[in-house]
Amino acid sequence: MKDAPYFLRPVGIVRSSLRSREGCPKQGGEGAPDAWLEIDPAFTEALDGIAVGSDMLILTWLHEGRRDLLRVHPRGNPDEPLRGVFATRSPDRPNPIGLHRVEVLEIQESDRIRVGPLEALDGTPVIDIKPVLPESEER
Amino acid sequence: MKDAPYFLRPVGIVRSSLRSREGCPKQGGEGAPDAWLEIDPAFTEALDGIAVGSDMLILTWLHEGRRDLLRVHPRGNPDEPLRGVFATRSPDRPNPIGLHRVEVLEIQESDRIRVGPLEALDGTPVIDIKPVLPESEER
Repeated sequence: MKDAPYFLRPVGIVRSSLRSREGCPKQGGEGAPDAWLEIDPAFTEALDGIAVGSDMLILTWLHEGRRDLLRVHPRGNPDEPLRGVFATRSPDRPNPIGLHRVEVLEIQESDRIRVGPLEALDGTPVIDIKPVLPESEER
Repeated sequence: MKDAPYFLRPVGIVRSSLRSREGCPKQGGEGAPDAWLEIDPAFTEALDGIAVGSDMLILTWLHEGRRDLLRVHPRGNPDEPLRGVFATRSPDRPNPIGLHRVEVLEIQESDRIRVGPLEALDGTPVIDIKPVLPESEER
């Protein structure tokens, strides 16, 4: 496949009730809702083997993130001293990739997956899906 | 910043004794060595706050991965039935992003970080670094 290096192809999109960055929980465990992942039909074969009840890692493209910030106030709190973005989970970072651990709640028509909790905005591109490794629970 | 959408900028590179995919452990915990991350000077400010002893997630661009495979034999074992790549951690996937949990072992000259264990090949581009979230140990 003749992709340019470092060029991502979205494999799906997040459909969520979360519509603005301001109203978004910082992490899934902080009250984020369930969301649907709509997978591009070109990639549904890659979902084979994902089952309801599985814990998965969803990688997203945080399309509203700022790529020119190298330090931020953690959690957007101006009282916190500035810290390098690689020491935070800020969506503002050179490559605005989000990493979300979710549970698979429902699979419909083989290309729609309900997962939760997910703190990503409606319309966020999905770029990868990975299983949580059983031996370590975090890779 | 006027990047094209979905275009990644490497922020550093892996320097490792691992030189070929064939000799690579499948996961860090399977005997992978320590490795150095050489961070591009343009991004060293983003490292501020990372300390020796921290657990971090390293995101890499698995540049030898095949992007046109949607099903693989898990762990490259032909006896395992084919499974969708999103249900595996195969480096062959539409967007070949690797996710590695490591410990920070040493920091030199503010832009060289020794981490381990890391199963990525020498020369693998680093695209993001994130802290492991303390409240969940896996996000």
